[in-house]
Amino acid sequence: MNAPSPRVSGPFSGLKVIDLTRVLAGPYCTMLLADFGADVIKVEMPKRGDDARHIGPFIEEKSTYFMSLNRGKRSIALNLKDEADRATFDTLLETADVVVENYRPGAFEKLGYDWDTLHKRFPSLILASASGFGQTGPYSKKPAYDMVVQAMGGIMSLTGHEGNPPTRVGSSIGDIGAGLFTAIGVASALYHREKTGEATRIDVSMLDCQVAILENGIARYLATGQIPGPLGSRHPSIAPFQAFATADQHIVIAAGNDILFARMAKAIGALDLIDDDRFADNELRRHNVEVLSEAMETTLKTQSAAHWLKILDEAGIPSGPINNVEQVLQDPQVIARNMVIETNDPEIGTVKMPGNPIKLSAFTDPTERPPAPALDGDRDDILAEIVRSNT
Amino acid sequence: MNAPSPRVSGPFSGLKVIDLTRVLAGPYCTMLLADFGADVIKVEMPKRGDDARHIGPFIEEKSTYFMSLNRGKRSIALNLKDEADRATFDTLLETADVVVENYRPGAFEKLGYDWDTLHKRFPSLILASASGFGQTGPYSKKPAYDMVVQAMGGIMSLTGHEGNPPTRVGSSIGDIGAGLFTAIGVASALYHREKTGEATRIDVSMLDCQVAILENGIARYLATGQIPGPLGSRHPSIAPFQAFATADQHIVIAAGNDILFARMAKAIGALDLIDDDRFADNELRRHNVEVLSEAMETTLKTQSAAHWLKILDEAGIPSGPINNVEQVLQDPQVIARNMVIETNDPEIGTVKMPGNPIKLSAFTDPTERPPAPALDGDRDDILAEIVRSNT
Repeated sequence: MNAPSPRVSGPFSGLKVIDLTRVLAGPYCTMLLADFGADVIKVEMPKRGDDARHIGPFIEEKSTYFMSLNRGKRSIALNLKDEADRATFDTLLETADVVVENYRPGAFEKLGYDWDTLHKRFPSLILASASGFGQTGPYSKKPAYDMVVQAMGGIMSLTGHEGNPPTRVGSSIGDIGAGLFTAIGVASALYHREKTGEATRIDVSMLDCQVAILENGIARYLATGQIPGPLGSRHPSIAPFQAFATADQHIVIAAGNDILFARMAKAIGALDLIDDDRFADNELRRHNVEVLSEAMETTLKTQSAAHWLKILDEAGIPSGPINNVEQVLQDPQVIARNMVIETNDPEIGTVKMPGNPIKLSAFTDPTERPPAPALDGDRDDILAEIVRSNT
Repeated sequence: MNAPSPRVSGPFSGLKVIDLTRVLAGPYCTMLLADFGADVIKVEMPKRGDDARHIGPFIEEKSTYFMSLNRGKRSIALNLKDEADRATFDTLLETADVVVENYRPGAFEKLGYDWDTLHKRFPSLILASASGFGQTGPYSKKPAYDMVVQAMGGIMSLTGHEGNPPTRVGSSIGDIGAGLFTAIGVASALYHREKTGEATRIDVSMLDCQVAILENGIARYLATGQIPGPLGSRHPSIAPFQAFATADQHIVIAAGNDILFARMAKAIGALDLIDDDRFADNELRRHNVEVLSEAMETTLKTQSAAHWLKILDEAGIPSGPINNVEQVLQDPQVIARNMVIETNDPEIGTVKMPGNPIKLSAFTDPTERPPAPALDGDRDDILAEIVRSNT
């Protein structure tokens, strides 16, 4: 079951993952597995491949979206409705530790790969399924995308400014949330198999994951009976904990307790806030947050964001700029933490992308990762390995 | 190293986790570990305990926020600056598999528990640290909260409507993202230890995690050089993939490819959209998204959300309502998937909260979980177990 040549080293080195996933949720999960050293083999539809290959932005007709989600994986094109290709696929499964798929529930089963059959034929194989609504329940067979589960899962009802049109979370948290929970499922199942020999099937629903990351909103609703609405840039239970206008641009200040609040007021030279009864503790500040914000902004608007951030930083107040993507990629901390890494694409050269945020002392954290594969680009290697492992 | 009595069954049953974390990111991670069967022992500051105990909303002066993050854990109060308490803590570590902490970097070290010392004394102990900026880099020692890393990590620059004030993601994705990545780290490290005997240290930064979930924004910026801004309710690369007004309330429609687009247009009776050259493929629809949205809303505004959702559903178009928290908790799929579970608090009775979204075939998925612990509520049991394991 060892990968043929050492790839990126990590806790999953030596594991083989068969990756039937497309677009975002599944590929995000298997990217994490590849980052941790697993040999991830993408099994793609002949000719078309992963849909993400056709979603922009493109550089020289290659999707950087696809590249950033599939670094360090390998690719073979197989049509699972074709007999010969199915035989190849089955041989792949024999040598695999994990299959990850994000078909619509029922589709993989229709191809003959239901869990019971798989588990009987390949008793040590783990199967992870990520789908819109999960393998069970009344919506199971319905189609879903990120946008749909963001809407149905409630996060959109908490995001945005009151009275405005609905607001989507700016990154695809519906997909990525499911990718993260699926990765936790796979890692846990690998641990369980290593310890007991038992392989398990993992069933993750994008909608479920949205519910699981809502917690504050749910606690508020269940405690008060009031349906929480959008709060703009504010935290629902803590004040001041939000964005504030300065002379040039917004900054965030999170002075979450009485000590920090007093220190913040002193730092920005708004001493009157400290003795104001309306702001004496968090409950009062939360209740009077409109007045408090106005009072703070009266001071903050007299100087630039850079001015205030320096002062707040020196006073140890949690605060920061609202960075755009360009600023994030140039941030000294982000760079120092190796969170902007490179891949070297054979056709278009260096492509930067986010690094792996899980730093393990037992492994190096490469500044360069292998590029995403060409469609069917590793066929010969993969087939040769199958032959070798069968002789 | 076995927990004394069978708790919730799962892949981590039999593992002991010492949990020094507070508020959200760390407790969210250890909640996932407890949901999977680990015996999670919260070590809390005497008298005050986890800060989240003091963050509302409250029912009868008990924080439901705290409850929803700490179900199924146990609690002992220890002052790690007190000699006798440190001795107890050290004995706990002897029997533990994992320590999770979210102190400001340097603080746990100052107490004498730097990784090198820990690793020498307890060679099989895994240490997971979640912090605002990570254990290394120029900002390492700075304080951070969810709000700060949402701002600095770029997700706020992509969220909201152009021209509006900044918009925070409505749930604490800065904390929860870090909790999820830390859980992946712990599960991976457990697998690695089981396989090789080696324990590792995990270092997760909230800011890094924000960068890791930005991917689409980063790919867009690096491919085009343009800094992506907020997109309201729209997807950046796919159209139509957004919220639309109907006669009564907004719904989302995600008709992400040509086939779905044509089927959607037919379903809502807007056949003219199909033959319109401006909407012939995704690139064109994305380019002409304003005109397209207006055209679609002209039709959609003639009927209610319920009317359209039924029609779209029958046509197999990914679509859905924008649910608020109350609607989420009543959704038949959410309920069928056991995503609303109960705990039975000894003082206030039944408290509902989100379930575990990772469903494993090898384990049951309880509809009731043990409640969150009272501060120091398990002291006697925990101390008795230590004595027992030392004799």
